[in-house]
Amino acid sequence: MNLPLGYKYSAVYAGIRKTEKDDLGLIVSNSPANAAAVFTQNQVTAAPVKLARTHLKRSKGIVKALLINAGNANCATRTGTTVVVNTCAALAQRLKVDPEQVLPASTGVIGVELDERLILKALPRLVRGLSSDRFEDVARAMLTTDLAVKMADCEAALKEGAVRVAGMTKGSGMIQPNMATTLGFIMTDADLTPRQLQEMLDGAVNRSYNRISVDGDTSTNDILVLMANGASNVNPGKKDRETLAETIAEVAESLAKQIARDGEGARKLIEIRVSGAEDSHTAERIARSIANSPLVKTAIAGSDPNWGRILSAAGNSGVDLNPNKVDIEIQGMPVCHEGLAVDFDEAELKKKLDAPECEIRFEIKGKGKAETRFWTCDLTEKYIEINASYRT
Amino acid sequence: MNLPLGYKYSAVYAGIRKTEKDDLGLIVSNSPANAAAVFTQNQVTAAPVKLARTHLKRSKGIVKALLINAGNANCATRTGTTVVVNTCAALAQRLKVDPEQVLPASTGVIGVELDERLILKALPRLVRGLSSDRFEDVARAMLTTDLAVKMADCEAALKEGAVRVAGMTKGSGMIQPNMATTLGFIMTDADLTPRQLQEMLDGAVNRSYNRISVDGDTSTNDILVLMANGASNVNPGKKDRETLAETIAEVAESLAKQIARDGEGARKLIEIRVSGAEDSHTAERIARSIANSPLVKTAIAGSDPNWGRILSAAGNSGVDLNPNKVDIEIQGMPVCHEGLAVDFDEAELKKKLDAPECEIRFEIKGKGKAETRFWTCDLTEKYIEINASYRT
Repeated sequence: MNLPLGYKYSAVYAGIRKTEKDDLGLIVSNSPANAAAVFTQNQVTAAPVKLARTHLKRSKGIVKALLINAGNANCATRTGTTVVVNTCAALAQRLKVDPEQVLPASTGVIGVELDERLILKALPRLVRGLSSDRFEDVARAMLTTDLAVKMADCEAALKEGAVRVAGMTKGSGMIQPNMATTLGFIMTDADLTPRQLQEMLDGAVNRSYNRISVDGDTSTNDILVLMANGASNVNPGKKDRETLAETIAEVAESLAKQIARDGEGARKLIEIRVSGAEDSHTAERIARSIANSPLVKTAIAGSDPNWGRILSAAGNSGVDLNPNKVDIEIQGMPVCHEGLAVDFDEAELKKKLDAPECEIRFEIKGKGKAETRFWTCDLTEKYIEINASYRT
Repeated sequence: MNLPLGYKYSAVYAGIRKTEKDDLGLIVSNSPANAAAVFTQNQVTAAPVKLARTHLKRSKGIVKALLINAGNANCATRTGTTVVVNTCAALAQRLKVDPEQVLPASTGVIGVELDERLILKALPRLVRGLSSDRFEDVARAMLTTDLAVKMADCEAALKEGAVRVAGMTKGSGMIQPNMATTLGFIMTDADLTPRQLQEMLDGAVNRSYNRISVDGDTSTNDILVLMANGASNVNPGKKDRETLAETIAEVAESLAKQIARDGEGARKLIEIRVSGAEDSHTAERIARSIANSPLVKTAIAGSDPNWGRILSAAGNSGVDLNPNKVDIEIQGMPVCHEGLAVDFDEAELKKKLDAPECEIRFEIKGKGKAETRFWTCDLTEKYIEINASYRT
């Protein structure tokens, strides 16, 4: 990977999850970085989300370290706030920074007390392990039911020099981000203000994390952070910031698609393209309704071109829709024209649907030009198996 | 069953579905009955729904016969309107009634042409088979992936005499009724006007069909009809109408719960009781959000008391919710007090969750007194299996 300059990473097994896989990760910027973040819109929010929001506000967007654990969401727990305050403080002391410059993030089971001693005990090992080449170790430590590590990187060649953007994220259940998602951390070595970062992050999220759904459940712990430490010594001008915003959005989109592809139990990535809507909000609502239909998702799992479920899901999206103005294509094959059945080669389409990626095009005629893309995954028996005994 | 007087029933196999099980049903009132109906709110509506709505309006609420088929939804098909108009007309001619007094209803796959010749050819046999004791045959003919026949009956002892109410319905996927659901037919032999019937039906639906969800998908073909033919010669007064409305609501509630219990792949009926909300709409939104969470439903499937998912789903319901004011009980055992974990005997609760019925109580404190009940089912591997190859 082509990593941004000036960051170090570390991960250890602290004993939070039952299986002995790293469950505590740390990202440190060598110099204090500017940062922006988006958080879950769930009204039930975990203690680390609340504290991260407070810290970011109090530090005026200056972040030195991210402390991330998997295996426990530290949400709806009696000791939640104490645990996250104490562990951030202990890390800050060890790094000799202000506690407000530490952002915490947790993922895992809700409503089970998190034993802070596990983290406090692991901190010395964690800090000792910091190294500029352990990016993937952190990306791996924050996974829960994910099968694949999720990372993306991109370099932007700006006028004043190259800057690098790299991000990591995790899935893969309770995924329907709403202004944020799951855990995601994107670092760059460009020199940007917190305000510039927030604007870039919001733009990126709107076409990536806010356009995916695995199961329609928005988590209590979602947080996505964008950090910029200026280690490249490149301070981009207005035009270059546009280029960089695009680079950051591409990294975010790659991460979001990796989440959808690795949704719990998923075998296929589904891309839904809605076009011809009167505005992008309408396009998004239709796409989300299709993406969240368990009937659409199970049909794709079975390579069954049951397009009637797609049309029905769109009809339930709550937006004004005239089915007689709708064309649907699956894997490039027309299946529905102006709301009615089209003759198509069923055997051929079933075969095309066996591919690891499925594209559904939903085109509205005569309404407008707004379009959106949205990603989800198929719904398989494996999702049930994973979630029937997650807690115990 | 204690059936209402003055109705006849018939069912045959017309060849619409692939397996040789009755797929065409007929309900006829000996005298023209008054009727009320509610229909799907999906913006994509099947041809029979559109025609039933038109017929009921034109006939001013007079209904003689219900013609019901399974195996094909007759939705989003090029010939849909022609098929339903022709088959209703042919039946009307045979029964010597106005076509407007025939209400059609279809259920099955969307987007596949329905061959009207199959129905036209079967009509003579269907009409010949009419008999007052074949109620269950019709209830069986309209099933799709249902495992159980769904019927309910109740007698109301009114001042002027007894009247009977009996209903039938079907499930069991694409179930999240919105002002109506799936197919449902309730008959009574009381003497009531269409307006009185509509009022009773709306009241009944609001606490039954509009309080269930199997998979969060609202069908394109939902229709629920309430008929009253007056064959009992009982014309209830105001107070008796209240009693009868309650009886009808109980029948509707029984039918709705049978749908939830027999949701595709379901092993358990889940009852969600939300109390202490500021109004019933708020209570319903919270209950629906919990009922539609695949993570809650899979946890119940696995007898996993993962109450954090219940709290999280409520936090996503879109209503204003303070988690610190929430108590949750599962199977009568407190698991969450004021938004935080309660110590409970995990083994004992897991055992209680193995029961065929699961009750989730979600109590909000200090907001109000509104409450609601909502029914859904657990989500198992079987749902996926059924829906991955439904069409083909």
